[in-house]
Amino acid sequence: MSLRVKKYGGSSVATINHIKTIAQEIAKEKEQGYNIVVVVSAMSGETDHLLELSSSLYESPPPAREQDAIVATGEQKSSALMAIALEGLGCPACSFQGWQLPMTTDSTHSKARIQQIQKENILKVLDEGKVVVVAGFQGISEKGEVTTLGRGGSDTTAVAIAATLGADACEIYTDVDGVYTADPNICSRACHLKTVTYEEMLELSGLGAKVLQIRAVELARKYKVPLLIKSSFGGERYTWIKEEEGELDMEDAVISGVTLERNEAKIAVMEVPDKPGIAYRVISPLAEAEINVDMILQNVSIEGKTDLTFTVPSTELSRSRNLIEQIGEEIGIGGVRTNDSIAKVSIVGTGMKNHPGVAAKMFETLAAENINIQMISTSEIRISCVVDAKYGELAVRVLHDAFGLDS
Amino acid sequence: MSLRVKKYGGSSVATINHIKTIAQEIAKEKEQGYNIVVVVSAMSGETDHLLELSSSLYESPPPAREQDAIVATGEQKSSALMAIALEGLGCPACSFQGWQLPMTTDSTHSKARIQQIQKENILKVLDEGKVVVVAGFQGISEKGEVTTLGRGGSDTTAVAIAATLGADACEIYTDVDGVYTADPNICSRACHLKTVTYEEMLELSGLGAKVLQIRAVELARKYKVPLLIKSSFGGERYTWIKEEEGELDMEDAVISGVTLERNEAKIAVMEVPDKPGIAYRVISPLAEAEINVDMILQNVSIEGKTDLTFTVPSTELSRSRNLIEQIGEEIGIGGVRTNDSIAKVSIVGTGMKNHPGVAAKMFETLAAENINIQMISTSEIRISCVVDAKYGELAVRVLHDAFGLDS
Repeated sequence: MSLRVKKYGGSSVATINHIKTIAQEIAKEKEQGYNIVVVVSAMSGETDHLLELSSSLYESPPPAREQDAIVATGEQKSSALMAIALEGLGCPACSFQGWQLPMTTDSTHSKARIQQIQKENILKVLDEGKVVVVAGFQGISEKGEVTTLGRGGSDTTAVAIAATLGADACEIYTDVDGVYTADPNICSRACHLKTVTYEEMLELSGLGAKVLQIRAVELARKYKVPLLIKSSFGGERYTWIKEEEGELDMEDAVISGVTLERNEAKIAVMEVPDKPGIAYRVISPLAEAEINVDMILQNVSIEGKTDLTFTVPSTELSRSRNLIEQIGEEIGIGGVRTNDSIAKVSIVGTGMKNHPGVAAKMFETLAAENINIQMISTSEIRISCVVDAKYGELAVRVLHDAFGLDS
Repeated sequence: MSLRVKKYGGSSVATINHIKTIAQEIAKEKEQGYNIVVVVSAMSGETDHLLELSSSLYESPPPAREQDAIVATGEQKSSALMAIALEGLGCPACSFQGWQLPMTTDSTHSKARIQQIQKENILKVLDEGKVVVVAGFQGISEKGEVTTLGRGGSDTTAVAIAATLGADACEIYTDVDGVYTADPNICSRACHLKTVTYEEMLELSGLGAKVLQIRAVELARKYKVPLLIKSSFGGERYTWIKEEEGELDMEDAVISGVTLERNEAKIAVMEVPDKPGIAYRVISPLAEAEINVDMILQNVSIEGKTDLTFTVPSTELSRSRNLIEQIGEEIGIGGVRTNDSIAKVSIVGTGMKNHPGVAAKMFETLAAENINIQMISTSEIRISCVVDAKYGELAVRVLHDAFGLDS
């Protein structure tokens, strides 16, 4: 019998009425003869509320073990509510919390990594003809403690369950109806995409398309679980995220999307002595402080001195600056300049692997609008440019046009 | 090292500020060198809110397994919040949910009975110098399902833990500062009691003194765990609930309290054929419907017919009447009369075992006020009279005076 794994995000289960609506859809599918595993997030706002409660009792961050025990209750509540809603429709259902499956993780509270999902309990309940409702986002450590996977962890839970059970696909229901060529709020001519590859999605989601957690996409790619993105508020549209295939709609498209990332800041470390290991000495204190350094550029050396420029999350700018100034005193630098009014514009597409000249076209398009490029970085399927923040949205629109994404 | 088990009710942890205040007291005691196990209820209002959510999804009662999974989150939240509050004060703490101890129960969801509490995890954490915070009210069944103990179950959890660990006492912090000779809202001259016996408390709590769950008192009596009732809002007053001893303050008091129960209704089954087993035939359908029948009286038989009168919770009156009318048709009865404007007034005291004439004095006192007694029932240490509801409060006051409880 065909097995469906369906994940519903917080906005999809935001109220009792939302839960009822979704339960009706699930019950209908169950009647059609599918085996169904549902993974739910906490009702929207719940996790933030729980985090607020705990941080009001502790200078942040509160003890991670207890924090996890609190926030995990959000999904426990929504999963049991979903099971009750299904039962209320005459559709037998059974909820599982992370420890009940169990889904074992490492002990890194608040960002635990999944180790294993026992499938026996799930299979037994499916066998009894019931819908399985799993509390997303949470697991249990070897020590028997509640762990959580971090923001968006329910996506990861759903993909891991789909992989473990060998489901044909993992359906992710969220508040958008799929992936677009650009953010429709920025670019009115953004087009809906029926298919993107895992690799494209990784670049798109890492770059700010808030559809799906990057970890979930990584896991889906690793275990080759096709992901279906749909809106939980209805509508016919969907986006498949899967392996690159001959028949992909995207085959001939060079670029599948343009994205904009506004939450980064730039730090330029001037006149750094250009010695082996110097980049490591500058960057490693940030890594130790768990600051995520993104683009890193090193200029050619002039008279034994080089400039090192990189971006960090805007929220980490002042911490980063302090760390860099400390290390700067030790190694001797010319100065530190920062800029938090920047935007990162990226074009993403597997097609660019076979199409030379994509980068040139991007630079030309931006230049034609007098948009100065401050930094450039590239991957196999992505080209990113840092520009002045005020040009971010314009850049998205002109690139979207230039690469014909509206057609 | 001396071990203290302290239980805080919902009103004691109603808000973040309440939790902070209590955490300060606990941290202070910890500094004084005590080993401390804290048992907490859900923040007040939380359990009702969770029940409302689930019953809005299901014609009541919702599936008990899922209902338990939802309501148990209330105590999981408050226990982890309490642990964080303690850590925030520099007092190491560790929370445990029911399944983490584990506290095993039978599978009777929503009113599970405790089977065993594993003490290893608690002892290990106490050994590490931490305060143990236990989520009250919940356990885990043999099947690995979350179970709850029913209303007031956190009291029972606390007593069971105190018994398991061999604690000297179990401290129950609630919104009142102990047990009184009568409800101070009814009888302005009600006096605070420093000590009552388990037996008295069982009669008092079963009869409506809302201080403590009757199950918790039964468990405390069984394992001889002295209970200390205090207000979590401060004050010097307290009540000990313990075994009858020579030095009890109550030794010479005949009566320790007067209680009023207003939530019962009377059903009189008229002209029942007086045959062996007839009471069983009348009452057993109610027992099967899980209706709690309280006082049962059978009149002397006249011409082979008798009247059978009993009380049930007011909320069960119409269900009970229907059941009785059904059985009445089968066995042939004269009719059914019901009355839900009754009150049950009781006097309770171990002293009455050695003092004859207590009942006579009670009846005389009520008669002097022209209060008619409709039904009477007695135990070794309690005499209860059903009177017209409108006389209930007056009856409490005159009995309180007559037995000198204000001195």
